[in-house]
Amino acid sequence: MTAAAHELGSFAPIPPLDEGVRAAARRHVDVLTKPLGALGRIEPLAVALCAMQGTLRPEIKSPVAIVFAADHGVADRGVSAYPRAVTTQMVSNFLAGGAAISVLARLQQMELWVVDAGVDGDCGTHPRLMNAKIRRGTRDFVAEAAMTAAECHAALLAGKRVLEQVAEPDSNAVVLGEMGIGNTAASALLMHRVTGLPLADCVGRGTGLDDAGLERKRAALASASRRVTTAEPLELLAEFGGYEIAMLVGALRAAAARRMLIIVDGFTVTVAAAVAARLDRGVLDYCVFGHCSAEHAHRALLRHLEVEPLLDLGMRLGEGTGAAVALSVVRAAIALVTDMATFESAGVSNRAG
Amino acid sequence: MTAAAHELGSFAPIPPLDEGVRAAARRHVDVLTKPLGALGRIEPLAVALCAMQGTLRPEIKSPVAIVFAADHGVADRGVSAYPRAVTTQMVSNFLAGGAAISVLARLQQMELWVVDAGVDGDCGTHPRLMNAKIRRGTRDFVAEAAMTAAECHAALLAGKRVLEQVAEPDSNAVVLGEMGIGNTAASALLMHRVTGLPLADCVGRGTGLDDAGLERKRAALASASRRVTTAEPLELLAEFGGYEIAMLVGALRAAAARRMLIIVDGFTVTVAAAVAARLDRGVLDYCVFGHCSAEHAHRALLRHLEVEPLLDLGMRLGEGTGAAVALSVVRAAIALVTDMATFESAGVSNRAG
Repeated sequence: MTAAAHELGSFAPIPPLDEGVRAAARRHVDVLTKPLGALGRIEPLAVALCAMQGTLRPEIKSPVAIVFAADHGVADRGVSAYPRAVTTQMVSNFLAGGAAISVLARLQQMELWVVDAGVDGDCGTHPRLMNAKIRRGTRDFVAEAAMTAAECHAALLAGKRVLEQVAEPDSNAVVLGEMGIGNTAASALLMHRVTGLPLADCVGRGTGLDDAGLERKRAALASASRRVTTAEPLELLAEFGGYEIAMLVGALRAAAARRMLIIVDGFTVTVAAAVAARLDRGVLDYCVFGHCSAEHAHRALLRHLEVEPLLDLGMRLGEGTGAAVALSVVRAAIALVTDMATFESAGVSNRAG
Repeated sequence: MTAAAHELGSFAPIPPLDEGVRAAARRHVDVLTKPLGALGRIEPLAVALCAMQGTLRPEIKSPVAIVFAADHGVADRGVSAYPRAVTTQMVSNFLAGGAAISVLARLQQMELWVVDAGVDGDCGTHPRLMNAKIRRGTRDFVAEAAMTAAECHAALLAGKRVLEQVAEPDSNAVVLGEMGIGNTAASALLMHRVTGLPLADCVGRGTGLDDAGLERKRAALASASRRVTTAEPLELLAEFGGYEIAMLVGALRAAAARRMLIIVDGFTVTVAAAVAARLDRGVLDYCVFGHCSAEHAHRALLRHLEVEPLLDLGMRLGEGTGAAVALSVVRAAIALVTDMATFESAGVSNRAG
């Protein structure tokens, strides 16, 4: 039994989409009072939501946003524009309601949960904070594995447990986000090794590195990459990942097993989705990619996964913010497929007529 | 006194944006708890909303959606995939609540008003229908002017009157949309002559023309363009426009004079904005371009106006649908600029720290 198969044994299987409903939804969308295809990407989105939920009248119930936060040993190498202490400070800001994702979760009437996956600091207690700390930050992956296999396993299961605890029994949609100073470095390296795309295409400026910082980041990642030979996704996750990334993989997998709509945020969450998809491609059936980050590697990764993000607003904040804005487009798609009249019911001539 | 100046005399002047508030809003956005610029295009959008409303706490109050509908003489030349009768049928569908814009207006809690600007049919009566019919469709602009100068003048004033009647005293946002079989032909020709861009770049498939239909449309427009020599925007509007397009120009102008946020929908409304901008560039200060239509000429026109649309979802329906979806992004921008914490208030280290 491989390591991957062992980990996956802890997760329920991912149910396939309802192909009968998908076909019926396609037919239904084509007789709504609009030219064929005139709602653009809202149409396949609406069809996908029908197929996920197995109904022509999909709905969003009790949506939750979960932000996984952790620190990264590699951050001490100057691969981020911000000091590591910011991870802990931002966890407080999320919970106090002042961060971008706090504001957007309120606007979208989503419950916001914050998970201490491995923050290098004391996050205190709060009714919406889950303490799942594996360790105070990963080890520096340039020198050694970021986490042990046991820690990686624990983080995957913690992601699953968190998802199951924060989702109400009727919750059918989740926005996944992350926070971790240095985590675009971990994400870039994971992307490189999981997808096989050139490292240069996977590395960007994160939250705002200057040219010298970008060069440091590239050099550190190239050095770390040389240290490791495995191609096995969970081994790569342990070598280079963060605790928040591993928990995201577990949460993605658990949400898909529950047939929840997963609105994927920016670069780091998409890297987690790419790792999860290497373990079971079915997870992508339940993912909607909310926003293409200004972190240029994100566009390459989305192309690699053969998915199209809904929004492209130049955001590069993480936290789940792009996904939270995209929830509005999902709601529009649901309202349109559910409530629009058909040519027949409205007495409107179709092009044939 | 030129014709343009004469028409403009009927409209109040457009107040300039509040540059002091704009500068203060820029400074405020830069100290919110996120890396500089990390909210991408949401940041300049939020700043623009502050400048329009003259406050650091902008809000959307009593938003309205207005769909102007009219028929086009040129439609009889086979320049649309749908029969002309569809314009009248869709007006009923808008009012009955089954059209895409009806569904989205409900979702966005906007009042939807429909204006018979010159439909070639009987639209009946309805509490949310305004009868401003100038004529049962324009004349065929390939053979003669689409409307007389007097009709064009009446339509401009009707657009202003409609805006002022449907907007509540506190309304500060409007979504403008249109419906008219054949109106992408009129829009293409207006775009060509108002912007000077090559006709080929201005013509597309509208609601779904096949290759032969596209060829017919191009030939008809080239022929009509040769008939007319003027470069004066209101004369071009009378020659080629539709009554709905002329009313949109009047409504745009009147909304900007009231300092309302105008969310511009797809190709035809953007053409109306381009005409309005030729008369007074200030109108663009109050416009947010909601969505880039799949009608390829729209992208070229947006570039010409030096504006960037918020969404690019491949929609090509008109009715105000792209703008209605974009209202969600506007609301997100407002929530973020209003409710996010600053580095100082949240005790988060900025990059300097």
